[in-house]
Amino acid sequence: MRQENFSQTDVKLDFEKSPDGLVPVIVTDIANGQVLMLAYMNAQSYQLTLETKEMWYWSRSRQELWHKGDTSGHYQYVKSIKVDCDFDTLLIAVDQVGPACHTGTRSCFFTDVIAMREEN
Amino acid sequence: MRQENFSQTDVKLDFEKSPDGLVPVIVTDIANGQVLMLAYMNAQSYQLTLETKEMWYWSRSRQELWHKGDTSGHYQYVKSIKVDCDFDTLLIAVDQVGPACHTGTRSCFFTDVIAMREEN
Repeated sequence: MRQENFSQTDVKLDFEKSPDGLVPVIVTDIANGQVLMLAYMNAQSYQLTLETKEMWYWSRSRQELWHKGDTSGHYQYVKSIKVDCDFDTLLIAVDQVGPACHTGTRSCFFTDVIAMREEN
Repeated sequence: MRQENFSQTDVKLDFEKSPDGLVPVIVTDIANGQVLMLAYMNAQSYQLTLETKEMWYWSRSRQELWHKGDTSGHYQYVKSIKVDCDFDTLLIAVDQVGPACHTGTRSCFFTDVIAMREEN
């Protein structure tokens, strides 16, 4: 990968707000801003993400570290990380290889609950 | 408000995935897709949101129902609701009145942790 030039700020995240010690991470596509997925990080996966600039999560179902792409090849390369006003949620823009969703769709959000009807 | 024409699909959300019985809700600006904030819903606030087409959350800090805008005037009118592939996260596009963030900024995500440096 091409070496990139990032500026980085030390921020103390609030991992204690949630009873399971995790922070939710909103993942967007750097290409167009689309929301791709939401997953969770603990302190260790956050540290690994900062160090490698690749997305590491904590899998709630498997209860283990999850390096996105290791089994699927669908790696996520970090382009920017923002934190919200009370330091308990992350918004990360990534360069997404292939689909983000395990179902094979680009985004995990493909099911409509409420949608505007098309006007005729 | 102008009466709008929505299509709505019954979807059973998985409120049990999280130890506190809440689902995270990613809120985006219908105008431009910007991620404005993340908050949480329990079953009751989700039902109220579906019924009123205005955003109702569960406040984790106050442990009470929270009708966004009731104290600030910064209401959020629902334009679309999507659910993710495993039915435990919502993505809701809203018409946001004023700033979404209690600090007065449009979005809660105004703090950079990692950013690309400007090339000279």
